[in-house]
Amino acid sequence: MDPSRVLIFDTTLRDGEQSPGISLNTQEKLEIAQQLARLGVDVIEAGFPITSPGDFEAVEAIARGVEGPVVAGLARTHVADIDAAWNAVRDAERPRIHTFISTSDIHITHQLQTTREDVKGQARAAVAHAKQYLDDVEFSPMDATRADVEFTAEVCQIAIDEGATTVNVPDTVGYTTPQEFASLLERLNALAPGLADVVLSVHCHDDLGLAVANSLAGMEAGARQVECAVNGIGERAGNASLEEIVMLLHTRGEALGGLHTGAVTTEIARTSRLVSRLTGYPVQPNKAVVGRNAFAHESGIHQDGVLKERTTYEIMDARTVGLEANQIVLGKHSGRHALRQALEELGFAVEGQALNAAFKRFKEIADRKKQVTAMDLEALVTDEIREEVAAFSLEWFEVEDSSRRPPHATVGVGLPDGAESVGAFTGDGPVDAIFHAIDAATGFDPRLREFRIDAVTAGQDALGETSIVLELDGVTGAGQALSTDVLEAAGRAYVRALSNAVRRARAQAEEPAGERAADYVPTP
Amino acid sequence: MDPSRVLIFDTTLRDGEQSPGISLNTQEKLEIAQQLARLGVDVIEAGFPITSPGDFEAVEAIARGVEGPVVAGLARTHVADIDAAWNAVRDAERPRIHTFISTSDIHITHQLQTTREDVKGQARAAVAHAKQYLDDVEFSPMDATRADVEFTAEVCQIAIDEGATTVNVPDTVGYTTPQEFASLLERLNALAPGLADVVLSVHCHDDLGLAVANSLAGMEAGARQVECAVNGIGERAGNASLEEIVMLLHTRGEALGGLHTGAVTTEIARTSRLVSRLTGYPVQPNKAVVGRNAFAHESGIHQDGVLKERTTYEIMDARTVGLEANQIVLGKHSGRHALRQALEELGFAVEGQALNAAFKRFKEIADRKKQVTAMDLEALVTDEIREEVAAFSLEWFEVEDSSRRPPHATVGVGLPDGAESVGAFTGDGPVDAIFHAIDAATGFDPRLREFRIDAVTAGQDALGETSIVLELDGVTGAGQALSTDVLEAAGRAYVRALSNAVRRARAQAEEPAGERAADYVPTP
Repeated sequence: MDPSRVLIFDTTLRDGEQSPGISLNTQEKLEIAQQLARLGVDVIEAGFPITSPGDFEAVEAIARGVEGPVVAGLARTHVADIDAAWNAVRDAERPRIHTFISTSDIHITHQLQTTREDVKGQARAAVAHAKQYLDDVEFSPMDATRADVEFTAEVCQIAIDEGATTVNVPDTVGYTTPQEFASLLERLNALAPGLADVVLSVHCHDDLGLAVANSLAGMEAGARQVECAVNGIGERAGNASLEEIVMLLHTRGEALGGLHTGAVTTEIARTSRLVSRLTGYPVQPNKAVVGRNAFAHESGIHQDGVLKERTTYEIMDARTVGLEANQIVLGKHSGRHALRQALEELGFAVEGQALNAAFKRFKEIADRKKQVTAMDLEALVTDEIREEVAAFSLEWFEVEDSSRRPPHATVGVGLPDGAESVGAFTGDGPVDAIFHAIDAATGFDPRLREFRIDAVTAGQDALGETSIVLELDGVTGAGQALSTDVLEAAGRAYVRALSNAVRRARAQAEEPAGERAADYVPTP
Repeated sequence: MDPSRVLIFDTTLRDGEQSPGISLNTQEKLEIAQQLARLGVDVIEAGFPITSPGDFEAVEAIARGVEGPVVAGLARTHVADIDAAWNAVRDAERPRIHTFISTSDIHITHQLQTTREDVKGQARAAVAHAKQYLDDVEFSPMDATRADVEFTAEVCQIAIDEGATTVNVPDTVGYTTPQEFASLLERLNALAPGLADVVLSVHCHDDLGLAVANSLAGMEAGARQVECAVNGIGERAGNASLEEIVMLLHTRGEALGGLHTGAVTTEIARTSRLVSRLTGYPVQPNKAVVGRNAFAHESGIHQDGVLKERTTYEIMDARTVGLEANQIVLGKHSGRHALRQALEELGFAVEGQALNAAFKRFKEIADRKKQVTAMDLEALVTDEIREEVAAFSLEWFEVEDSSRRPPHATVGVGLPDGAESVGAFTGDGPVDAIFHAIDAATGFDPRLREFRIDAVTAGQDALGETSIVLELDGVTGAGQALSTDVLEAAGRAYVRALSNAVRRARAQAEEPAGERAADYVPTP
């Protein structure tokens, strides 16, 4: 293998999906995984199969349905975890099991409540067990940056001796600095000579804003796999941003000794939008590479300079990340055939019933908007994916809102049994009134945790995307919806969030008490 | 001076304010500057006085009104720029002029269209001219990371010989890597021996996600001033995040040879919220230090681990950045005295007419919400600041929205002359209908560029904050507004954005053509 080639290990669906309020269903995860394959990532960490039947099902669906990348499942060192990971990924073209255990004394003492000797034994047994199933096994010494380096090296060497093919060094709590991290990896390389024969990987968190820089320091110290997530999502401040890692090597790889990835950079913008939309996590305007302003130049001279010579103030071209690439525009007179072609150009293969549904939605939107752009179509297809799994639906609504009297809403909600239930409420605002009217119609009383509306595209007739997170009986459910009408979008997002919360609450209630502990799992 | 002390140079109001769609008025800038003083920054770069009368006025107001930090004004090497900067900052306790010119050939050739010799002459003359006015002069060789290092060193030495007391090395286009940047600074130190006698500073942009790491590399190479912005705002992907720099040194300073700042970390969260609210720039949930999730732990074991021993999965305490610090809760029966006390606790000194206005708004909100929290009060006071400067006002509105017929809005808009104008519209959505009704009432036809609604606080009765950017005759105007009613907030934000756009368009039209060029100014 090319010694300058860096493997992109995407953990959007695993570490990213652990972010508060994100709860992707199998269909949504599959959609993201397919886009990651288009983006050309090398490894997709699809989930953590032992943690829930839903996670297992999603990893299995991705292993079966996504071609190209290695598909990895995460597992603690327990036999049951590894068996679950294997059963979930076994049908992939190229399956991987990723197993991990902490090597820091703070984790060993407080969280695992065991001894260093036991950690060595668990690591050995786990890799050996995984190797019975497949060749591609990754091992991570969790919290390595706060661990004793000699002990960590010893555990890594054990994993390598048992056949681990990738060793990943995580900065689990986002604590290290580039210099420290480079030193750590150099010492590990010296203390565990077996590292020379496997792929060295890094997994960095952004708590101090250093995730990308630490990953770079890792690559400079010999790492040839970087674990990262789209839009930098993940636990707390998230993981290293995939798009920043990829564009760093794309832009500066030559100065970095020729380091490069296999990523298709022109798919970056679209991947970022898809993940943002399905997770409900916004990308701030000043986010590197994928923020709305990343390629904008407000101050006049910059625009002036850019006109004179692009490189004066731009080190990357917006087209390289896939911005402004697609000029598809449809109107209200565009037919089914034009829609299908446009969707195909966007990478969506839509046929039969799905095409009919998409066409119906398209016509509704085209009636309200003069032009339907590629961005609108993308949002529309994403929205359709969500619709399929909602138990409740907003059938109709009426709202009166005025500065002169309290707003009033009446709604008709479709119930899972096909019946319609009507609810009404006078609230503090029109959204509040709709939400309470839906509560009245469904008989649930969830707590609203988050609420946000974004315009998807520019212009007065932009589609508004609403994101909602609510809490019901201790579990959270998220929902998003799209419309030119913000109140309609709010209502539809609310019934979807409610559907998700109800589904999760029921799943949790049905799990045997003994298995509930599996909900509580550590991760790198 | 303590050799490990790092000066925090905040450029939120200069580089940050250059972000697309941000247009802070003097009152808003003053509010942010006062909060920056509470945060304990060492230098506030208050603006770029030559660029517009509004910028001049804001810098002057901050120089006169804010105690504590050095107040800096930015200036090109032109005499007029330096004179304007001096006139704006001269009343500050500790004024500074910050002058700059590019040293990279790409800028010298394409943007300045001059020669290296001329650049040397301009740098020399500019620092000498500034020194006639005051002692504290900062010089920046713009685009230094893409410039010939020997030439850059020569220009820096010239600036030092003329009396510059701080030399700032900008990575203007966010191109460098930590190792490269450290090498550059080491070579500059060797080539320009005068750097040993002045404060070395760094100014890093985040285009490749490395702004904080490059700043750290700079400090490791001897820089003792870091230029940064709250929430990392600024041109394109923005500047190094102030909060990440401060918390990096707070958390890891010991391992970094004792590096530390004078920042009051407990003011970080509040500063972040204030800047986000006044600029209309959201902070993504997974943003380090100030994102909603920065201190959250979704995966169960992390919560489990945190309960067992906080340091298991947390390297920073949420209280250190001022989260969860304030438990103020007021209700509808709270009186004027309780409100004034609560505002004082939050650092707002509100008396007389302003207290009456705040109390009136408080009562309106308390009527709709059971509990008014510190966060609500903060938002309310910020909202009042905005109201003062709007030319138009939303007096009343009526909206009917239904899934069965197109939404209809009627509005009454207060005009600058005190009259009221009524407008009505049937739109694609209720927000669209309100916006067009306002257009009908005012006779303007702006283009909506951005639209966003966020919940300020949790819960069904949360206050919604709407952010709008619109474009009128080629200039943009931004507006934000707060209400429990999203349609009311949308309407109020729209009239404010319209007020700002009209004001800016008129100011631009009134400027003599010769001065218009001053709009187009390069910055580090």
